[in-house]
Amino acid sequence: MFSKELQLRSSRRTELIDITPQVEEAVRASGVQEGICLLYVPHTTAGITVNENADPSVKQDILEALERLVPPGARYKHTEGNADSHIKATLVGSSVMIPVAGGRLAFGTWQGVFFCEFDGPRSRRVLIRVF
Amino acid sequence: MFSKELQLRSSRRTELIDITPQVEEAVRASGVQEGICLLYVPHTTAGITVNENADPSVKQDILEALERLVPPGARYKHTEGNADSHIKATLVGSSVMIPVAGGRLAFGTWQGVFFCEFDGPRSRRVLIRVF
Amino acid sequence: MFSKELQLRSSRRTELIDITPQVEEAVRASGVQEGICLLYVPHTTAGITVNENADPSVKQDILEALERLVPPGARYKHTEGNADSHIKATLVGSSVMIPVAGGRLAFGTWQGVFFCEFDGPRSRRVLIRVF
Repeated sequence: MFSKELQLRSSRRTELIDITPQVEEAVRASGVQEGICLLYVPHTTAGITVNENADPSVKQDILEALERLVPPGARYKHTEGNADSHIKATLVGSSVMIPVAGGRLAFGTWQGVFFCEFDGPRSRRVLIRVF
Repeated sequence: MFSKELQLRSSRRTELIDITPQVEEAVRASGVQEGICLLYVPHTTAGITVNENADPSVKQDILEALERLVPPGARYKHTEGNADSHIKATLVGSSVMIPVAGGRLAFGTWQGVFFCEFDGPRSRRVLIRVF
Repeated sequence: MFSKELQLRSSRRTELIDITPQVEEAVRASGVQEGICLLYVPHTTAGITVNENADPSVKQDILEALERLVPPGARYKHTEGNADSHIKATLVGSSVMIPVAGGRLAFGTWQGVFFCEFDGPRSRRVLIRVF
């Protein structure tokens, strides 16, 4: 099993960061031809998702929809001001699995993978496993 | 690792399609007795979920709840008319992992697995890996 | 591949139950040093999520946000009174994958893993695979 850790730096409170190039690079480095890639976010106010990487407005629509569903300013019990970030993390999820085929991520034409910052700006990590 | 690709054809804009029989068949064909089955959707306006396959009204309730949470007609930046489909894909997710036990999916009594069409009708694919 | 089944008993209709100690114990018992842990919920009205295990109010905020997004009392087609529970299961998801490193779950500082009861109280199971 190949292991790698990505280091990221987000620059806004909520942000979708395209990490497709770094993940493709890790898959190449792993030498795995046919297998599976696990991406895992070891944070409780961030998530990870696969979605369109062609039109950047999709990222904005996803963030705004989450903001509308889980408003930052609503009344929450958690008093650190980031209850909404925790809830978004559970809705989006902290891991994705992507098949590897021919030494590359078996993405559809328009797919990319995005780190989802819900409580930035911060330094963040993504754990990669290829097997 | 056993690999297979399902071909689907959706017939409505939003639809949950039960793919349990095809996935069970792939697990049988793989010959894997104890393992894991990964199902992956290589599309950005569709998802995949495990839920009840007894009462079909559950599928309808899931679709209507998503429609209410992410209305197709709302104001979005993405101008292709399917921003809601992308957002639903991120909420539901593009992959599921199901344990395999005794050569079958280790489903609970009422579980089945559903391809989630959010921008049909279209031809779609689901990637299956059993290991 | 190491397999284990957790038995749980929920005590309310909706509840997040911290199962981190039982999962850590299973990873220890598996003897796996570097690998992956799959947690799978074989139920259609429950889910599983990774989130903060420090402040218990985060659990309450997650449950209340889901209650607001998918109200139990709304009009649904499924007539067993738990349509909202099925919808929440799809939003949260029925499986999580967590990397194993040094013989332990590769959790971030504040992470724990929670069984999400959406239609309790009931006896429930979680399937664990470590590989």
